[in-house]
Amino acid sequence: MRHQVAIIGAGPAGLMLGRLLEQAGVDAVIVERRSPEYVLGRIRAGVLEPGSVALMDRAGAAARMHREGLMHDGCELSFDGDRLRLDFKALIDQRVMVYGQTEVTRDLMDIHTGPVIYDAEDVTPHDFDARPFVTYRKDGTEHRIDCDFIAGCDGFHGISRASVPASALRIFERVYPFGWLGVLVDQPPVADELIYAHHERGFALCSQRSASRSRYYVQVPASERVADWSDTRFWDELRARLNPDTAEALRTGPSIEKSIAPLRSFVAEPLRFGRLFLAGDAAHIVPPTGAKGLNLALSDVGMLADALIEALIDRSDAGIDAYSTHVLGRIWKAERFSWWMTSLLHTFPETGAFGRRIQRAEFDYLAGSRYAQQSLAENYTGTF
Amino acid sequence: MRHQVAIIGAGPAGLMLGRLLEQAGVDAVIVERRSPEYVLGRIRAGVLEPGSVALMDRAGAAARMHREGLMHDGCELSFDGDRLRLDFKALIDQRVMVYGQTEVTRDLMDIHTGPVIYDAEDVTPHDFDARPFVTYRKDGTEHRIDCDFIAGCDGFHGISRASVPASALRIFERVYPFGWLGVLVDQPPVADELIYAHHERGFALCSQRSASRSRYYVQVPASERVADWSDTRFWDELRARLNPDTAEALRTGPSIEKSIAPLRSFVAEPLRFGRLFLAGDAAHIVPPTGAKGLNLALSDVGMLADALIEALIDRSDAGIDAYSTHVLGRIWKAERFSWWMTSLLHTFPETGAFGRRIQRAEFDYLAGSRYAQQSLAENYTGTF
Repeated sequence: MRHQVAIIGAGPAGLMLGRLLEQAGVDAVIVERRSPEYVLGRIRAGVLEPGSVALMDRAGAAARMHREGLMHDGCELSFDGDRLRLDFKALIDQRVMVYGQTEVTRDLMDIHTGPVIYDAEDVTPHDFDARPFVTYRKDGTEHRIDCDFIAGCDGFHGISRASVPASALRIFERVYPFGWLGVLVDQPPVADELIYAHHERGFALCSQRSASRSRYYVQVPASERVADWSDTRFWDELRARLNPDTAEALRTGPSIEKSIAPLRSFVAEPLRFGRLFLAGDAAHIVPPTGAKGLNLALSDVGMLADALIEALIDRSDAGIDAYSTHVLGRIWKAERFSWWMTSLLHTFPETGAFGRRIQRAEFDYLAGSRYAQQSLAENYTGTF
Repeated sequence: MRHQVAIIGAGPAGLMLGRLLEQAGVDAVIVERRSPEYVLGRIRAGVLEPGSVALMDRAGAAARMHREGLMHDGCELSFDGDRLRLDFKALIDQRVMVYGQTEVTRDLMDIHTGPVIYDAEDVTPHDFDARPFVTYRKDGTEHRIDCDFIAGCDGFHGISRASVPASALRIFERVYPFGWLGVLVDQPPVADELIYAHHERGFALCSQRSASRSRYYVQVPASERVADWSDTRFWDELRARLNPDTAEALRTGPSIEKSIAPLRSFVAEPLRFGRLFLAGDAAHIVPPTGAKGLNLALSDVGMLADALIEALIDRSDAGIDAYSTHVLGRIWKAERFSWWMTSLLHTFPETGAFGRRIQRAEFDYLAGSRYAQQSLAENYTGTF
């Protein structure tokens, strides 16, 4: 089997890359170790920056998003119950689109017509310094894909980054001592916009997937187990961290899904190794505060698609040579913002009373400064 | 002896408070444990915010400052040699005045005509919950000042805060694991404006007192001793941390003064205890990054003067009742900014490679964002 590009991973990054290459007449194949149902079953973030919306448009995958997605003009921060609305539209004339990652994945699956190989076992990239190829096993048979380039879009635990010699990678990492306990519920969201709440009991987030489905989170110690959190305990804890009016308005119900996600900041550099490129979670992780993960993955593959098209159609290496440096600039901006927003909104017992007052001072400064709000808005909407 | 207000401490805060009260016809006395020469010998910051300049004007003490002070439209940040000019004038139409704290103190000494008692030993505030008085000893004789109010302007190690029961105070503190080694030299400054430099070897600052006298600093471990730093070692270390062009232009010479100052963030709350009020360093310390210490002390006593005048002349307690809450709002803004600027510009080995990249990302974001620059500018100039 021969294709110009072998993409490892059929999540939103791999599917978007495949679609953009397909549109440009590049012959790409996607290899995924899981089934389509498994891929669609992942519950993830749901806030799209304008750049991500534009990429969905470019991919011709945006019709349902524009119909069903919710445009948000802003969001709310709260600190020990004190509320601050950030109006991105008024501050910097930008907005975000609330549309679940699962829906993005589904729309990209629907539009994509090129080959996607699901349930591929032991996917492995080879010889990417010279004549790259990818091997995998399916239904008991070994397969080999010869290609010009390999794109590693297979997430944090994927084989692509793991195939690179450790000596060729520089790793930057921070693991936070807590996670997010998330609950999905079929109830209308408590507010029209997202609410990010700092409380002395810990962080909470009121998010949403649609007008009738909500997603709520509370910060918990990293050691916490889902089994210890009944629905009742979760709702009580969430209410305790919100402004009283918000807590009063909260509509609860049985959880459809309940899980704990750890929080991590992670960047591997560089993102190119000969003819292998890393994109999305394969190269970097942000804590979910600020919802940058999916947006960053999409902006990576937007740039990678352009670079590969330039190399394969226009026969210029300029794009692939610049790829790593180019995307890392944006990645570190998003890493900084996600780290900052995580630092502002979560409780960190190790920073003591001084650290907590600095968080409060940051909130108060934000509440009074248009410049600070504009800075937050351009980061949140990814329009810096 | 009886006065309406007894001010403990004849540094710039105490002298400014005395002068503002004197202008309003309030009878105040200042008691200082040191000599005038000792007070003037302290080398401190030299950047005045517009609010501090306005207070000097109000005090009628601004003539020499306007003649000899240097108006700066901006400053420079550098990161591993990469330069970023911040133009406060263009960004937010504000500027700062470079004029040494020693000069401020001298001008306030010159204009003040009320009683100042220097070389007062064992100064002690008493009974400030009911009928306050201050005792001290001078030339072997005990003295007592009965008064309506006591103002504690006697610095971090002063008796005023120490006289308050520990149970009545809430302390917020961060001690940084490094200090600033500073050198004063009779050479023209290396640049027209201040340069704040982050380098992997540590922070450096190029500051100035006048067109012919410069003040330079390098970050050193808290355990460092001045005796281990020859002038040559200092200049070599400073050059290594600057942009090569700046290092080349540096004019060195024998140090007039060389000392190490520790870095600390500290706030005591509240700032009122019955008829005793704390102001300036007696209540709070900022690390010197951003030069907020003197400015914060002056803004404290500006507000305290208004409150005391209201209480003694207008017979209203509204100002003194609001004093603590009122000034703490501004204090925490300055504490936050000083902590942030310290965090951005110094090296912190304990945050590792990820922490250092976040600092770089912050610098790069600042370099590309007008909103972020405007936010920094309003904090630096104290016009938030």
